[in-house]
Amino acid sequence: MAASEFDLIRDYFTGLGSRREDVLLGVGDDAALLQPPEGQAVALCVDTMVAGVHFPGDAPAASVGHKALAVNLSDLAAMGAEPAWATLSLTLPDADERWIASFTHGFGDLARYHNVALVGGDLSRGPLSVSVQAAGFVPRGRALRRRRARPGDAVFVSGTLGDAALGLALWQEQRATLDADSAWLIARLHQPTPRVSLGRELRGCATAAIDLSDGLAQDLGHILQGSGVGAVVDVDRLPVSEPARHYAVARRCLEAAAAGGDDYELCFTVPRTRLHRLDAIASRTGVRLTRIGTIEPGQGLRLVHGDGTPAGLQVPGYRHFTS
Amino acid sequence: MAASEFDLIRDYFTGLGSRREDVLLGVGDDAALLQPPEGQAVALCVDTMVAGVHFPGDAPAASVGHKALAVNLSDLAAMGAEPAWATLSLTLPDADERWIASFTHGFGDLARYHNVALVGGDLSRGPLSVSVQAAGFVPRGRALRRRRARPGDAVFVSGTLGDAALGLALWQEQRATLDADSAWLIARLHQPTPRVSLGRELRGCATAAIDLSDGLAQDLGHILQGSGVGAVVDVDRLPVSEPARHYAVARRCLEAAAAGGDDYELCFTVPRTRLHRLDAIASRTGVRLTRIGTIEPGQGLRLVHGDGTPAGLQVPGYRHFTS
Repeated sequence: MAASEFDLIRDYFTGLGSRREDVLLGVGDDAALLQPPEGQAVALCVDTMVAGVHFPGDAPAASVGHKALAVNLSDLAAMGAEPAWATLSLTLPDADERWIASFTHGFGDLARYHNVALVGGDLSRGPLSVSVQAAGFVPRGRALRRRRARPGDAVFVSGTLGDAALGLALWQEQRATLDADSAWLIARLHQPTPRVSLGRELRGCATAAIDLSDGLAQDLGHILQGSGVGAVVDVDRLPVSEPARHYAVARRCLEAAAAGGDDYELCFTVPRTRLHRLDAIASRTGVRLTRIGTIEPGQGLRLVHGDGTPAGLQVPGYRHFTS
Repeated sequence: MAASEFDLIRDYFTGLGSRREDVLLGVGDDAALLQPPEGQAVALCVDTMVAGVHFPGDAPAASVGHKALAVNLSDLAAMGAEPAWATLSLTLPDADERWIASFTHGFGDLARYHNVALVGGDLSRGPLSVSVQAAGFVPRGRALRRRRARPGDAVFVSGTLGDAALGLALWQEQRATLDADSAWLIARLHQPTPRVSLGRELRGCATAAIDLSDGLAQDLGHILQGSGVGAVVDVDRLPVSEPARHYAVARRCLEAAAAGGDDYELCFTVPRTRLHRLDAIASRTGVRLTRIGTIEPGQGLRLVHGDGTPAGLQVPGYRHFTS
């Protein structure tokens, strides 16, 4: 613990991520100076991850760095925004330089991949927690919202669901060795893939979108509430990965897919007249898209089997402060 | 603890602060949508306050809310930026609604005073900590930086120095009753005044500026390092408040003024040719401005008495991770 926070910021955080011409002034002054493009709205989000709450305290530092940025890029993706800038507030119990180096490696790799510049932040002593703020651009009036789903719209999800919840169970088993399936599920937990290009492609196609952080049932519920509609979802259509099927029995996979958090896939609604576009979008983005249900009048989410019988699943979703 | 975080966000955080027409979409979706003014740069900063590190864990909730925003507005002030938007990440051990109501009261009052809209954020369970990001506007090329101080420039500070450090000592004494002087010093600690209008007025006048969060010696040091210059400061000129003089002996006041943190005054440098503007700026902003020294060639900060003899003060400044 030889370095002050000023040394650490200089050595590990200055210039992290991509270089961008719209960053007039980056890390190192009282504030960053940024030049947003004209004619576009700035999408701004923030997500804090607390050790022991949002991620296991013993998660690899590189994964923590990756995930802290990924969950924010996922929020931008759900708005159809193009990521550009991020700030980082890192609170650490001590200045463990190896941990910090690994953390910034994970953060920086993902930032460069999405052309995101780290433009500011701070470093404090305290219980381990990471707060990232991300900003991106979206053409005026083209952002994806939660409130425009209409009865008859198809409900889609990207990727596979429930992997992160099963990955967490696996991580907590603390196995000495992991097979490929288990390692993949744990990677889905620790290094989620923000669906940035998919979000961009869904502009002008999806009527509503959200990213799945608290579980499908709860997050789709936000779309339903925001749009004043209900939905029916066929649980037999929920996309479950092969590694998930190998690890858990069918019932548990289904519950994880319907209510498990942390997958950071997108859930979105598409009117019938635009359904023909989806194949091309899946192909351009390389992301599997699955139609899981339909928006209907009324309110609430009905989880049913393919034959229409109620699925009878317990789907609480994650809440920090429960009633 | 009857409310979920969704209820709490709806009840306490939605619409907090000012309403602004450039907020296209505020709290309640995956990200906020904002419309920056054309021709201006966006200044963006973030500051995290951890209970027991940046503020006493038993500080009044309204003060915590005020201060978490104030320290960020102070960063914007030091850039000469006009505040506009803020996001808030609040981590709480439990959902104490009285605490939250009081916190948002303090945050909201200051936000409205400076025409700042809360546009997003999140609420998590964990050790008490508050991370606020603030964004503001500054005309292109007019921002105040740390790197343009030149030999011969006068060094100024706003307000009085050392109050917050003495206020912290007083707070830690846990007195049952406080006289007016003590209460004022504690208010300087808990409810700092960001010098927003002063920062704006200093555009085109100051060659460098910084806000004083870690103490004069350390923060002025950042200007000196950034500008590649040194400075001589006459410690007998450091502005010390009457309440500080009543509470502490002269030597202690001096040390607090030279090295005490958390005052959130501005320190800035002004070339000789612009010194005549300072009286009018002090008068327009209602903020006391004191010339405390001069930038000189070389490097490092020399603290001297009026007669030129070294002041011999211990001025470590605050560091989270010390060497």
